[in-house]
Formats: sequence, structure tokens, C-alpha cells
Amino acid sequence: MSELFVRTLRDDPSDAEVASHRWLVRAGYIRRVAPGIYSWLPLGLKVMAKVEQIIREEMTAAGAQEVRFPALLPREPYEATGRWTEYGDGIFRLRDRKDADYLLGPTHEEIFALTVKDLYSSYKDLPLTLFQVQTKYRDEARPRAGLLRGREFVMKDAYSFDVDEAGLARSYAVQRAAYQRIFDRLGFEYVVVKAMSGAMGGSMSEEFLALSPIGEDTFVRSPGGYAANVEAVTVPVPDPVDATGVPAAHVEATPGSPTIETLVAALNADHPREDRPWEAADTLKNVLFVVTRPDGTREELAVGLPGDRDVDPKRLEAQLGEGAVFAPFAEADFARHTQLVKGYIGPGVLGSEGPTGIRYLLDPRVVDGTAWVTGADEADRHVLHLVKGRDFTADGVIEVAEVRAGDPAPDGSGPLELARGIEMGHIFALGTKYSDALGLKVLDPNGKLVTVQMGSYGVGVSRAVAAVAEAGCDEKGLCWPRELAPYAVTVVATGKGDEPLEVATGIATALAEQGIDVLLDDRKASPGVKFADSEVLGMPTVVVVGRGLADGVVEVRDRRSGDRVEVAVESAVAHLLDLLR
Amino acid sequence: MSELFVRTLRDDPSDAEVASHRWLVRAGYIRRVAPGIYSWLPLGLKVMAKVEQIIREEMTAAGAQEVRFPALLPREPYEATGRWTEYGDGIFRLRDRKDADYLLGPTHEEIFALTVKDLYSSYKDLPLTLFQVQTKYRDEARPRAGLLRGREFVMKDAYSFDVDEAGLARSYAVQRAAYQRIFDRLGFEYVVVKAMSGAMGGSMSEEFLALSPIGEDTFVRSPGGYAANVEAVTVPVPDPVDATGVPAAHVEATPGSPTIETLVAALNADHPREDRPWEAADTLKNVLFVVTRPDGTREELAVGLPGDRDVDPKRLEAQLGEGAVFAPFAEADFARHTQLVKGYIGPGVLGSEGPTGIRYLLDPRVVDGTAWVTGADEADRHVLHLVKGRDFTADGVIEVAEVRAGDPAPDGSGPLELARGIEMGHIFALGTKYSDALGLKVLDPNGKLVTVQMGSYGVGVSRAVAAVAEAGCDEKGLCWPRELAPYAVTVVATGKGDEPLEVATGIATALAEQGIDVLLDDRKASPGVKFADSEVLGMPTVVVVGRGLADGVVEVRDRRSGDRVEVAVESAVAHLLDLLR
Repeated sequence: MSELFVRTLRDDPSDAEVASHRWLVRAGYIRRVAPGIYSWLPLGLKVMAKVEQIIREEMTAAGAQEVRFPALLPREPYEATGRWTEYGDGIFRLRDRKDADYLLGPTHEEIFALTVKDLYSSYKDLPLTLFQVQTKYRDEARPRAGLLRGREFVMKDAYSFDVDEAGLARSYAVQRAAYQRIFDRLGFEYVVVKAMSGAMGGSMSEEFLALSPIGEDTFVRSPGGYAANVEAVTVPVPDPVDATGVPAAHVEATPGSPTIETLVAALNADHPREDRPWEAADTLKNVLFVVTRPDGTREELAVGLPGDRDVDPKRLEAQLGEGAVFAPFAEADFARHTQLVKGYIGPGVLGSEGPTGIRYLLDPRVVDGTAWVTGADEADRHVLHLVKGRDFTADGVIEVAEVRAGDPAPDGSGPLELARGIEMGHIFALGTKYSDALGLKVLDPNGKLVTVQMGSYGVGVSRAVAAVAEAGCDEKGLCWPRELAPYAVTVVATGKGDEPLEVATGIATALAEQGIDVLLDDRKASPGVKFADSEVLGMPTVVVVGRGLADGVVEVRDRRSGDRVEVAVESAVAHLLDLLR
Repeated sequence: MSELFVRTLRDDPSDAEVASHRWLVRAGYIRRVAPGIYSWLPLGLKVMAKVEQIIREEMTAAGAQEVRFPALLPREPYEATGRWTEYGDGIFRLRDRKDADYLLGPTHEEIFALTVKDLYSSYKDLPLTLFQVQTKYRDEARPRAGLLRGREFVMKDAYSFDVDEAGLARSYAVQRAAYQRIFDRLGFEYVVVKAMSGAMGGSMSEEFLALSPIGEDTFVRSPGGYAANVEAVTVPVPDPVDATGVPAAHVEATPGSPTIETLVAALNADHPREDRPWEAADTLKNVLFVVTRPDGTREELAVGLPGDRDVDPKRLEAQLGEGAVFAPFAEADFARHTQLVKGYIGPGVLGSEGPTGIRYLLDPRVVDGTAWVTGADEADRHVLHLVKGRDFTADGVIEVAEVRAGDPAPDGSGPLELARGIEMGHIFALGTKYSDALGLKVLDPNGKLVTVQMGSYGVGVSRAVAAVAEAGCDEKGLCWPRELAPYAVTVVATGKGDEPLEVATGIATALAEQGIDVLLDDRKASPGVKFADSEVLGMPTVVVVGRGLADGVVEVRDRRSGDRVEVAVESAVAHLLDLLR
């Protein structure tokens, strides 16, 4: 400890939003170099190396072969698959001295596909799974929470190659099982959720989320075992309704009712229902957006959804595809369409066939036969009993309404509850998106060229360090599980004279000779400083050699539980070896 | 082998200039992604991991602590030390989405210095040596020879921090000794040469060169043990000469003599010496350059040197400092100075006090009292007996004349011989260049702030793989030393029926159980293909299980010597274990 390159800090770093970030910096495991970019000091690097080792062992056991591809990649392959553009501002781009375009790789589907194409040509060569542990880059808009959302980070990414879909399903299942073993060994609570596959494309995709209240990913789960992130949740589509008895649509005055709240009040005041009061869910809200695609094209979009739900920005973003950004209609946008009366917009002016020509998509709950109160496209007026299918139509359906606790699971497995998690792994059955774009084909047993089926599989290695820290730390500092701790034991020498340090050194040396990673606190510092530091640094077992020596004992503390036992000096090493094995 | 991600190629890659590049690609160890940027396939990565392991062990044994710093680095610290500009086109620069400037780190002196400044404040904290094994970037003008001069490459870089120069000298010596152990273990022939420290600054610097005819670095050595790269060679300065008897300088007609060759001919024809013929070494050649500094400023420079030597561009580059480029005077440059008569330029018009104002530097051999034939600043005329100190002076001295075999070593240890090497390591006693620029100071025992003394120490990890390959390969393929081979043994099954593969599998399994890395060639391919591949891949020992089985024997081949011995099947494993341990 007197030589180790580490310093504990008394104060929280000013930019720390979450406990793992705070303690990893305060305990001297990492240091910030720039937003989302960190240096790994000796203790942090030791933890990351242990995470890497677990992942490497499980990947190798799953039959994947390790390679290492460059981080600096040429533009062309990413151009071929469209990702050069799709990533928008999300990747780092640069030019070399000859003005050739490069990027810092966010993931490596393209280069792996091209390399397999270069080496392999027959179904006999497959299946194949390759992996790497490598530094990756994303130019995040809001790097946050220390290592949890960085701009330079370490990932394990793996890619599978199969001759057909059945093979892909097998490779996917093998990786999925390996991921479960990895996350079991990393020792945090996690859930596997269905995911939208986003920029990766592909037909099937699951995320491994570490359960955590500070997680960026909201997911849902049902008592019956359904689990998905909110982007992937689908609404169980109701059957069409028989609208035979619904009165004809009619426009009514609803003065001063440009919001759902004011509309419901106006309806109940001036146009009361007989059976029950009007509710927000009886109204159809039409929300307008301007969508900008990564290639710069703009599109206007109207979304119609029940008035009791808002559009969830993350679900909308997921539906629009990677790199697209959206903004609510601004005054200038309204100004382009004189037919749009703000606060009173109805289906009558929307739709690609309508007067504005704005594409109009509906929430799946707005099925044929359902009747709605919605804008009459005149100030202070709404239309009642407007029936979908009878009185209006739209260009299609979109899944962007917020998901709420209590909503039914799409598979009928009960009401959903919402929770938060940190995305630790993501696996994708990509299919042929990349192999099609890059011409990755092999000869099948009949001598025909078939397009290779790909999968891709990622684990955030540096993020795992933060997630484990987040799950384990307490108000005193870090607290590592035994398999990931930089050192299994801290031996703290306290008190006057040479004896404490001599005994502590003896214990530390004996443990080290048995292959145990030991940190000896040999500093000339007060017991208080040493105890506090041992708690901040978070090794799972702390041995205190000091006052007890008068009675021939040392104290063995468990960092997590705080339990303390006294052990005779002579049997301390044997006791610790028992404990640690 | 039937599952390993590898393919051997029959043909040389079109861009391969050197054997290691050719064979690493043909044997499927690496693949080119872009100029100077490579992917590491499984076999290549295994070799690199073994190189890394050797380096890590020796660094740790030398007391250095491992860290990992980012590759993506902010501009500011490099601005503070001047390297942002000094590197010129030699580094990759980029901007993030907020238009902040970043670079891809070529070396990390700045960030290490800042991190030590952040954590440490007292002489008690020092000495400290940190190291990392990390991916680095340089935008080389001419990436070449595969891994030997790449644009993305793996380096081990270490940095030492000491409170005074004596401490730096100790840290430097410790690293130097560790480097010798590393290169001894890597197993190639190397030499330690004095070096110019270039962009790093600092007072002392040595290179570790692997002896190789394809090396980019020319170095010199003497029988007495002097060794230096050509940039660092200094000319032993002769004593001043007594010019008492030298006639007065006088201008003579030398028609048609704008070159040294034509001048010597003209002198011998029209103005013969009595004692011996005129030689090129009697003439003083004045060469003009335009130097452009990394900050864009231009300077004109004249170099005067004996007519029998040329200016060595590498030595000139080294003298000008990192990032400066130079070009010979062009017509436009001459046009600016009407006093300059091309082919007949003499000291009379040069020098910062002279009519042209061009800075004029002399080779160290041009000492006071020496007499020269040089240009008379008129067409077809030269001046004879022009004596340095008596008839002309200059602004200073510059060490840029070519070094030749037979030149005396600067330390008097005998005549120099020239050889070529690959730069494998470079160690620098930096002194306070970086700590001054970045304010890295600690309190000394008297409570005074002192600037920390730094050293930096680099080994090319990916380059070492190529250098070992280069030193070992032959006309049949790669040939690895045992400590670095991806597999210690290839077991090749050949011939008909199941028996060869069964016996081969048995031997391979038994070896693997003993911890030996074994590659089993279980492919359905002809013996010829398998033998050729085993030679291309280059594992040090090859076991052939085939025809000999009829007599109960297998053949054990040594890849390097080609020696073959037959061993009874039953004792094959024991024989191999003996051989390999």
C-alpha cells in the first residue's frame, strides 16, 4: 500500500451522479481524462482483468475463437451496410493525412463479415464463432455515470456465422447460455429481456440487464415470466368493435379546450355522457413531429393515440430507426399548414391522402369501430363519436404510446410491472442484413451459393466493472465479490513498535505464497485512516494486526457484513486460507 | 485445424515487401484492413499474447505497476507541451460532436504526468514507474512492411517519476535491464544504440534494435563497443589547424564546374596542386534548404560541408526537430536572392550577417584554420585557399553529413561499421520537459517544490511479433521459437483408414492434458497439403502420424533444422514431453 499507485479522496467528484462512479473515483480505481473517457489505475485494471478472464473462459468454453480487430476502421464497409450514415453523430469520424475517411469502431459486424468472406467459402467451414475483447468508441450525446455510459469503453463482442437459420438459432442459444454463465459468475442480479434490435437489424434480440434503480433502461415484466425493454413491448391489439349503435359524428363547441384536461372538463360541463363522465381515454390525441433522418431528409409525422397516454420518446426513437432524431412541431412547422389548428387537430386534415399530406399513424388500441372525441380542425370545436373505419382512417399503426404498470403483457401472462436495469449484454440474431450487404456467401452441400446467417453478441466489460461496483457498494465505499476483488485480503498493520508490521508482513507473505492476492497496508498512517481506506477500497476480507497482539490475536473482518472474529496469530493464515477457498 | 479460423494462401500478398509480412499473411496470422492497420486472427493473437506476457512479467519484476490509459485523448495537455503542433501530420486528430479537439495517442507522457500530479505530492511517494500495454496510433506517411510500421499498433509504454536526476538514472537503469531481459527472452539478436531523442525531448536516450537487413534504422558500431543510430553519431571534432603558411585566398576561373565532380576535374586541369591531385574532400560544398516548422513558419538554411560528403536527410531531420520538414532550394527560392549563383555559392554571401541573411551552419570538420576551395559567387569561378576563421565564419555547427563505414567512432573506439536494425524498444531519460510544461512538482525533504524527473520507455509489442517472425522465417514459411509459438506442436494425421487420426488424437490429447499447446491437423486433406501447411504455420515441432504406423512408429520433425527422428508410438508422448520441457 505504501508503493501502490492509489490515493483515496475524501470528497465526491463533482460530476458523479451514481454511487459506483463516486466510489471508483474516490477509491482511486479510475480517473477521468475527458467526458466519458477514463484511465484505469492499478486497482481498477485488476478488476477489469478479472472480468475479462471470466468472459474469455466462457467464450472459449462455448467454442468461440479469440481474435483482435482494429478500432480504426475504413469508411467503405460501413458505407456498404448504411451504418456510416445511420450512426449520425453517434460515432467518431476522422480523416487520415491522405483525406481518407475512417471511424472508430462502435461494433465490428462489417469487418468480421468481410474477414470470414476472405477466408471461408464452404458450408463445411461453418459454424464459426469469433470473439474479441477490444476498446470501442461511441460519441455519446450525454456520457454519464462514469463507466456506465462512456465514450471509450471495453467490450467483448462476438460474431457467429452459420449456413442456415437453424444453425443461427443454435449459435444464438450457445451464446445465450454462455452469457448466463458469465453473468452468474459476475454475481449480480440480472434479467433477460426481449429487445428491439435498433441499428443492428435482425430478427431476434435480447438484452441482459443488471437490475438497478440507476439503470438507464426501463423494462417490464409480468408474473407469467414475460420480460422486455419498453422499446420492445407490443400492445395486445383488441378485436374490432361493432359500431352499429354509435351515433353519427357531430361537431360540438368546446370553448377553451386545447388540452386533454380542458377538453374533458368542457365535455363533462357542456356535453355530459349519460352512463359515466367523459375520461381522457375517450379522446384521441393527435401529436405532430418533425423527423430528421441521418441522411438529412425531413419528414412530418402525426401520431394519434388515446388522450390518457403520452408518446414515449424512447419508443418513438426505437420505431424511427437508428440515427433519426425528432422534435415536436414548432410554430414554423404549424405555419406551413394553415389547415392545422393547434389544440384542435383532428384526423380530417391528416394522412398522406389528407389536405396536409402529413403521414398519420395510430396507436394499436385505435381499432376499427372504436369511437373518439377529437379535434374538429376549428378553434374551440371538437367532433364527438368519430368512429375509426367508419369516419376516418390512417396510414398505419405505430407502437409509441407509453407503457404503464398494470398494462397487460402481450403474451397474456398478466399485468406488467416496470423496473430499471443496466444493459450488460445484448445478443442479436442478425440474419442476413450484413452478409447481404457485403456479399458473404458460401457454397451449400448442393453447390449453391447461400447467404451466411450472422449473429452478434456483446458484453460491456468496463461497464460490468461499474455495474458490479454499483450493486455492491455501500455508504462506506466499494465492496467486491471475492471473484472480482483486486485483492482477496487487506492486511492492516496498526499500533506502535515494529511488531504489528512484522506480524502483518508475515501473514501477508504466507498468504501470497499460497497464491492469494494480498494487499498489505504498511503505511505510516493512523489506524482510523487505514480502517477507513480498507472500507473505501472494498477488499472482501480485512485482517487487522494491532491492539489484539497483546492477547496473541488478530481480527478478521468481513467487509460486507461487518462481522469481526478474533483469531490466534499462529492460526491466522490457516483460518484465512479456509475462508478464501 | 478443421475448426481453427485460419487459411494458408499459396500466393504472396501484393503489398508484401518483407518476409515476415508475406508469411504472417500467407499463414493466416494477420489480415490487412487498411494501410498500416491489421486484424489479428487466432494464431497471430496467440503469439502477441505471449509477447505481452513476457513484457508484463519483466515489467512487474522491475517494480512497474500496470495501468491502462485511454487512446482517445483531449488536445489540451498536448497543446501545453507543444506536441499537438510538433507531431504535424504524424498523428490522427478528430473532433467530437461538440467540436472539441481530440487525438489518438501516439505516446502518453502528458496524461501520465497529469495523473501523477493529481495523485501524488511528496518525494515520499517516489520513485514510481507505471506501464501499460495499449493500442497506439500514428498517421505514418508510408506505412510499410506489415506490422513493422503500422498506423494502429500495440505498444508497452512505461513512465518513471523521480525526485531528482540520480533517481531518474536509477529508474532508467532498472528499465534498461528489464528491456535486456525482455529481448533476451524474445530470442532475437539485438543491439543497444545511443539515439537522438526526437520529439520526446530529454537528455539521454537509447534504442534497442533487432539486427535485420530489412530494418529501417541504420546504426553504426565500433570494435571498441560504441553503438549509435546514425542520427546520434557525432563527428570527433579535429583540433584547429595552424593556417600560417596558407596562401591568401584568391579567385580562379573554373569554367563549367557547378558540381563537385566537375570542379575537381577543373582544378586538376587548370590549377594543379604540387603535392597531390585535388580531391572532393578539399572542397567546401554549400547546400541550401527551406525548412518548414510544424507551426507553419519557414526558414532558409545553408549547410557547408566537405565536398566528398552528402547531407544525410535523416540526420538533418533529426537536427531540425520533430515535425519540421525540409526541401532543397527550388528555382523560386533562388530567384529571391540575386546574390546566389547556383553551383558557385560561397560563404561570402551566406550567414545571418551576410548579404542574403541566410543562416549558415558548418559541418564540425570545418574547423578554424582549415583551407577550402569553394564557390566565388560568380558563374564559373571558385575561390582557393579560403581559410575558416581567417577568411570566413558561420552562424554555428550542424551534424548532418552522412556517416560512412570507416569513420572514427566519437569515443575513439575504432572505425565504425554500418548495419541495419528494426527499432524494438526506445528508452528516454526525459528529465523535466513534460513535468515543467504540466507543472508536475512534489515537495522535497526540505519542504521545497521540485520538478519531477521523468523517463519514458517503449516496446513495440505488435512490431516484436513481426521482428521475431522476420528473424525466424525461411523459404518454407514461419518458424517460431518455442516460447512464442502459438502451439508447441502440430500433430499431423495422414494416410488411409481411421487409425492415423485416432493415434494422432491420442497423442494430442495426452500432450494437452500435460499443459502443452497442441494443434491437431485432423483435416481431410492430402499429406502434401498438410506437410506444407505445417511448415507455413511454423510450430517448432511437427509430429507425423501416418505411414510409419505399420512399423509402430511416428515421426518427430524439428521445423527449424528439418531433422526427423522416428519414435515408437507408445513412447511418443514421453519423448515429446522430454523435448518440450
